[in-house]
Amino acid sequence: MVQVAVMGYGVVGSGVVEVLTQHKDSIAKRAKEEIHIKYILDIREFPGSPFADKFTKDFEQILNDDEVKVVAEVMGGVNPAYDFTKRCLLSGKSVVTSNKELVATKGAELLEIARQNNVNYLFEASVGGGIPIIRPISQCLAANEVIEIAGILNGTTNFILTKMINDNMAFEDALKLAQDNGYAERDPSADIEGHDAGRKIAILASLAYGKHIYPDLVHTQGITKITLDDVAYASAWGGVIKLIGRVKRLDNGKLDISVEPMLIENTSQLANVNDVFNGILVRGDSTGDVVFYGKGAGKLPTASAVVADIIDCVKHLKARKYLYWADGTADCVEPYEKTSYAVYIKAECTDKQAALAQIQELFNDVHMIVRADAPENEIAFATGVMTVEEQQSAIRKLALTGVEVKAKIRIADF
Amino acid sequence: MVQVAVMGYGVVGSGVVEVLTQHKDSIAKRAKEEIHIKYILDIREFPGSPFADKFTKDFEQILNDDEVKVVAEVMGGVNPAYDFTKRCLLSGKSVVTSNKELVATKGAELLEIARQNNVNYLFEASVGGGIPIIRPISQCLAANEVIEIAGILNGTTNFILTKMINDNMAFEDALKLAQDNGYAERDPSADIEGHDAGRKIAILASLAYGKHIYPDLVHTQGITKITLDDVAYASAWGGVIKLIGRVKRLDNGKLDISVEPMLIENTSQLANVNDVFNGILVRGDSTGDVVFYGKGAGKLPTASAVVADIIDCVKHLKARKYLYWADGTADCVEPYEKTSYAVYIKAECTDKQAALAQIQELFNDVHMIVRADAPENEIAFATGVMTVEEQQSAIRKLALTGVEVKAKIRIADF
Repeated sequence: MVQVAVMGYGVVGSGVVEVLTQHKDSIAKRAKEEIHIKYILDIREFPGSPFADKFTKDFEQILNDDEVKVVAEVMGGVNPAYDFTKRCLLSGKSVVTSNKELVATKGAELLEIARQNNVNYLFEASVGGGIPIIRPISQCLAANEVIEIAGILNGTTNFILTKMINDNMAFEDALKLAQDNGYAERDPSADIEGHDAGRKIAILASLAYGKHIYPDLVHTQGITKITLDDVAYASAWGGVIKLIGRVKRLDNGKLDISVEPMLIENTSQLANVNDVFNGILVRGDSTGDVVFYGKGAGKLPTASAVVADIIDCVKHLKARKYLYWADGTADCVEPYEKTSYAVYIKAECTDKQAALAQIQELFNDVHMIVRADAPENEIAFATGVMTVEEQQSAIRKLALTGVEVKAKIRIADF
Repeated sequence: MVQVAVMGYGVVGSGVVEVLTQHKDSIAKRAKEEIHIKYILDIREFPGSPFADKFTKDFEQILNDDEVKVVAEVMGGVNPAYDFTKRCLLSGKSVVTSNKELVATKGAELLEIARQNNVNYLFEASVGGGIPIIRPISQCLAANEVIEIAGILNGTTNFILTKMINDNMAFEDALKLAQDNGYAERDPSADIEGHDAGRKIAILASLAYGKHIYPDLVHTQGITKITLDDVAYASAWGGVIKLIGRVKRLDNGKLDISVEPMLIENTSQLANVNDVFNGILVRGDSTGDVVFYGKGAGKLPTASAVVADIIDCVKHLKARKYLYWADGTADCVEPYEKTSYAVYIKAECTDKQAALAQIQELFNDVHMIVRADAPENEIAFATGVMTVEEQQSAIRKLALTGVEVKAKIRIADF
């Protein structure tokens, strides 16, 4: 019998307790030990809960109980989760978590503490909810060099974009629907501004390339400026707009990493990932493209990933899992302005013929895109690959000739 | 330093040697040990090979060398792979393999021998090539009950069906193209008759449900009878025909398991899995649907999965991985005739009005399907869910009224 504690009894925490309780027998069989919840830490009261005897408001009680070998930190946020996690690891307890914010900001430090104390710090649930992705990247793909990772990592924004694409719903209306359905928070900024996806691609990049990539190094752009016109142009171009977290190692050894909306072709495996689903493409030098798809959030999917990590800790109480990355510095990442990609641009002009001539001169490999019912003064096109600096310079020059760029969205190369 | 042997220097075996050699440093880092190939077993000569000093034709040399801790069996076929694997495990060597035929027919016995000898028998590469699937099912989904697994498990047949669907190519022409491209063997029967997919779903079912399901218990039907008319009707119905291996646990505890062509809706995540790619959907009670997608075959994808297993063995030379199922018996599986599903039927008739009336009477919930340019005497429809026995009985009754069923294809419910 192994005693565990669950810190946080919110959506994920109550799911963890539910999964551990309802699947008790099959989990015991798989872990080769019975797993018993000794404590649930939460500052709130849960009168009448069947787990009433397990609740505590006192973290020290868990910390000082040597019987507790594994702790699930499902509180979210950096504080006090960071302090609690650190102290658990230092006292020889393994910690599993769904807390992407903590892993993305303090992962290297916590992994190092886990290593020094010969315990595990596992976080399968921090990316992709119930989709197995951390373990496949670290284990199954161990014999590969990861060339690139690209994913739809945030279900809320994917729901909004799906409504814009399939139902021609405006961004604000789709956001409101997401909020009404409980897919988006009342303050939706972490989702729609791309920060949630940024933390997740930072975690995947750290894992794949072995150095901690801090989220503030990730160029992050959300979906708030996407319009139905852009959606229509994407469709005319042969694709859809998705919010993509992506990382690729460049020839100079630095990482090209960003979260931003991208036009992806309809034939891409990520184009068909709709609603609140997530899809993550991992391109290995030996495996080629492998795609993982499923629900990236939600109580039970996320909880089941947390519980899988608990089981793994119980099976490895003495033998550490090798999940580790070193600290990283800003020079791991290529400055965004130096990165290069093809781009879709929508602009307004007064003299269309003159604008067309300017565009052909300033951009590579221009392909015009036409949508039905476009205003007379609107013009849209796709370019070839250029650096962001080159794009910006060309856009400034266009502006001098009276052509004003209204939208610029990256075109994906996967 | 850990010494390993590679048995078989065919497509996969040479890939394993290539991956181990080219990624030597990064693999050593991940395995925390340098991995050195001591022997390559093959009865053929490879003059001028850079690995000339490692070749042996004598299995006993590998068996009797106590330095060899891990053996990759990539010979394929049951004999002599079965004998070699058994003797390696008995002598305390871990074995990893891509040999789906051996795992599907002897898995329970070999896993039991591995258990008794405290070594590992791993086979990530046996299903889905480079797609991580064995490990995610056994580990990440440990906190789930697996409700259902459904997959496109054979790249050759998927290539053929994709050509039939997208390019309107007849089966024979698509098969020839697959052979010309090296995707199909000269004797393609194991692929096109469904046996390869049958072995793979048998392995996944054994893993998910804990009892060995032998391939001869899997109702297996290939794609040789699929016509372009069926493809056209599937399109009119709103879907595509795919060869699907599927297993689901019924309420009576038995497994509904088969490999057969199915109509799947265009909105299904498996509908868009094309060409030689594989896609596997795992439906867990907590995670919901999780889909894994990638190249299901090929030298380097498969080799990288074998090497990932080698790394895992090296990391667990003392601690066994828990990958195991018990022996199984025929009564684990529901007889095919008792299983039930909706079905697409194409028939020929002389009196269309009379036929329509008969069909409405004999089948549930009939929806007619219409395709352009159908002959006057052709009729096609989709039914509601019925047992196979009920379908067969209705088809016999139809025949008595002069309506001859020419095609009958299962309709998927995922």
